[in-house]
Amino acid sequence: MNFTMVTYIIGWILQIEAAFMLQPAIVGFFYGEADKSFIYIVTALASFLVGMLIKLKKPKTKDLYTREGFATVAIGWIAMSAVGALPFTATGEIPNYIDALFESVSGFTTTGGSILNDVEALSHVSLFWRSFTHWIGGMGVFVFIMAIFPIMGGYSINLMRAESTGPAVGKLVPRVQNTAKILYAIYLGITVLGCIVYMICGMKFFDAITTIFGTVGTGGYGILNSSISSYSPAIQWAITVFMILSGINYSVYFCLLRRQFKDAFSISEVKWYIGIILVSTGIIAWNIHGIYPAIGDSVRHAAFQVGSIITTTGFSTADFDLWPSLSKTILVILMFCGACSGSTGGGMKISRWLIMGKTIFKELSTMVHPRQVKKIHMDGHVVEHETVRATNVYLASYFFIMLLSLLLISVDNIDFTSNFTSVVAMLNNIGPGLGKVGPTGNYSIFSNFSKIVLIFDMLAGRLEIFPMLIILKPACWKKY
Amino acid sequence: MNFTMVTYIIGWILQIEAAFMLQPAIVGFFYGEADKSFIYIVTALASFLVGMLIKLKKPKTKDLYTREGFATVAIGWIAMSAVGALPFTATGEIPNYIDALFESVSGFTTTGGSILNDVEALSHVSLFWRSFTHWIGGMGVFVFIMAIFPIMGGYSINLMRAESTGPAVGKLVPRVQNTAKILYAIYLGITVLGCIVYMICGMKFFDAITTIFGTVGTGGYGILNSSISSYSPAIQWAITVFMILSGINYSVYFCLLRRQFKDAFSISEVKWYIGIILVSTGIIAWNIHGIYPAIGDSVRHAAFQVGSIITTTGFSTADFDLWPSLSKTILVILMFCGACSGSTGGGMKISRWLIMGKTIFKELSTMVHPRQVKKIHMDGHVVEHETVRATNVYLASYFFIMLLSLLLISVDNIDFTSNFTSVVAMLNNIGPGLGKVGPTGNYSIFSNFSKIVLIFDMLAGRLEIFPMLIILKPACWKKY
Repeated sequence: MNFTMVTYIIGWILQIEAAFMLQPAIVGFFYGEADKSFIYIVTALASFLVGMLIKLKKPKTKDLYTREGFATVAIGWIAMSAVGALPFTATGEIPNYIDALFESVSGFTTTGGSILNDVEALSHVSLFWRSFTHWIGGMGVFVFIMAIFPIMGGYSINLMRAESTGPAVGKLVPRVQNTAKILYAIYLGITVLGCIVYMICGMKFFDAITTIFGTVGTGGYGILNSSISSYSPAIQWAITVFMILSGINYSVYFCLLRRQFKDAFSISEVKWYIGIILVSTGIIAWNIHGIYPAIGDSVRHAAFQVGSIITTTGFSTADFDLWPSLSKTILVILMFCGACSGSTGGGMKISRWLIMGKTIFKELSTMVHPRQVKKIHMDGHVVEHETVRATNVYLASYFFIMLLSLLLISVDNIDFTSNFTSVVAMLNNIGPGLGKVGPTGNYSIFSNFSKIVLIFDMLAGRLEIFPMLIILKPACWKKY
Repeated sequence: MNFTMVTYIIGWILQIEAAFMLQPAIVGFFYGEADKSFIYIVTALASFLVGMLIKLKKPKTKDLYTREGFATVAIGWIAMSAVGALPFTATGEIPNYIDALFESVSGFTTTGGSILNDVEALSHVSLFWRSFTHWIGGMGVFVFIMAIFPIMGGYSINLMRAESTGPAVGKLVPRVQNTAKILYAIYLGITVLGCIVYMICGMKFFDAITTIFGTVGTGGYGILNSSISSYSPAIQWAITVFMILSGINYSVYFCLLRRQFKDAFSISEVKWYIGIILVSTGIIAWNIHGIYPAIGDSVRHAAFQVGSIITTTGFSTADFDLWPSLSKTILVILMFCGACSGSTGGGMKISRWLIMGKTIFKELSTMVHPRQVKKIHMDGHVVEHETVRATNVYLASYFFIMLLSLLLISVDNIDFTSNFTSVVAMLNNIGPGLGKVGPTGNYSIFSNFSKIVLIFDMLAGRLEIFPMLIILKPACWKKY
């Protein structure tokens, strides 16, 4: 392990986070919350200085192989979350640091599940920071550093591989740094566009900016206790559209920008994504039509909740825990489904399901025609054996972590549905589950121990498991 | 597809089943239920004649490759269940044929989940047949035919592979027919021994024989509405021991018979199995000690329920749906765990979990040492790539079927916990779940449509998925 290089990059992370943390501080001055802003500035300064101290020892070599890449990203995310939680506790708004850490991890991992009973009691500064962590975590802080500062050289791909979503990392352009730049440019573009659209639909600026952070990052922190349900139908539809757009593979936007329209609309994962959204919305709208008087309302609530869950955002306009079993089950299955790879969304990703589905068909074909040698194809390309294997191992690890987490949090003696959907919602970075953690509930019901388990799950979900497992392996920490 | 060979074997299945069906008929004469016996005899005769008609067309060749092997076993099990359900409806004891089919499939697949509200209302004939189906299905009817009639020649292995449990079929001796003979001899031995022990502990003969069928087949049909809870603690302990013995890989008994004690006790799957049982029992006994006055009672109930669930038997001595969340969650996880491969138990099997665990460790090792080429070992042997791949595909198919079944049965609008544990209990051939399908509930709450879904799940669970999937693939039905 190239420790100096790892700590050097962590130093960078802390400094970048300090810069990010100044944004809520500025917001505070507009809303007469200078005392709170002051705390954010002090935390930012401290983080910057610690980062500077760490960076004093310059790495002799920039070597950063797979294991260092994965470990660095995992440690970086833990450090970032730990620092990001500090102002919540320092301002006294979330007195228990474990709660603050839960809130911070839930923010950066774009989970959006909260331990707060009353979100509206928070200051504007903290509300802004909470939503802003979604934006930072959505596209990824390492990708951000790559886009701005070319410090990692040729080894950047190992960091990107750990932080990006989906079974295989596709570089949009040959150079990693340029890929990162393009991704962040698109990300910023959608953010600005969404904010304007939300304001046109009638949202105030503060509401619009925090909500768009939660939308494009597929996070789900709202600034109202009622999440999105008290906003107008027009706003709800606008959010639905931007959630769904944020769950699409960013290479689609890249193709569109390059006017490669045929390529953009031929990606099978995206077709499945749109198809699943349409079918699920249709079934749920029909299933809940007795609950809402107008057909428009059922369709709107169905589309919003489907978009929110499949993209793993977690906003809500309705208490779907009160919906019929079929609708609830569709939402739980969408939790497992997840968004497209290469998007800001979480979950297992549709491309993984496609690979698994194709693997099953291939296995059955092999049984029928034993002599046939068949490769798995997707969008005209052969899916590498490495990718298939990684997908299978991902599923097995996912299953293990799910069952182990379920076991550990069951010590709190909360009902099975709440426990099960908590783990699923955390591991897939959704936000709300069913039962006590449904849209009207929150995660404050759990003990500190269970919160730590769920914090691990959120990080494992966002970083797609392997980075969080590798740092648990002693061999990873050995010097060369 | 060698259709003539497939139908020829199905003919055999129907004739063998006819012979089996005469046993309950004999029982009926002892209990003054000649009218019911008569119905069983008529059904047996009809089954025998249909089998004879089918067998008139002799196959030209005995070719039976993987796909025919798998398809034959799937079709054979469906035919056997369909015929086995007839007397339940003909006697008027289960008027709805779908219910009768559910009961019959639940019997043969050794699931043990019932649609009956009042088991005690059944005649002795039907009670005997119900439990006897567990015994037939436990070791497998194809294995039985192989042991008695060498009709399949060298292709028997393809049938055995489909019907036996676990990721890879291990022949005990070079010839498949001899392996089948040894397996049935051990099976019969344990059955006789268990029946004697149960009677020594105070059970009446009818209770002992039906209960041992449910035990060694890891089925779980009881003849009392209270399952096993009204029997004495001594009997409950005896059943616990025989359940656990039935979940052990039969090669252990083979080694013991050959006095290869070192081999018998060195199988890692069996060590894990015993370890998991001890740890789970310990935690649950501690967790429920407030519910039962004496420590002996908590240990007994804990050990019984753990043994019953991990072996996928499904007997119960206590309503574990009322236990604390931790105990319930352990039981749900044990449902996924399953017994040893090569036993009569269902579920995913511990060896599959071991293979998956080793795969994850291998993947992490490869990340840390990319140049290292590592193979997965178990008990000193290399696990073949084929086996690892089949295990991965099994897990993916399992996950797909689980989620799809959950979706389909949710149309009935029953709560999430009941739906989820129903699917898990059916797919793993357990019997009871939690909530409405807990130890005091049953599966009559579901619609006919959901029952058919659950019937598919039980068969997919018993035959370990692939045989049931391959018959859904049109290419499987093409002539050569």
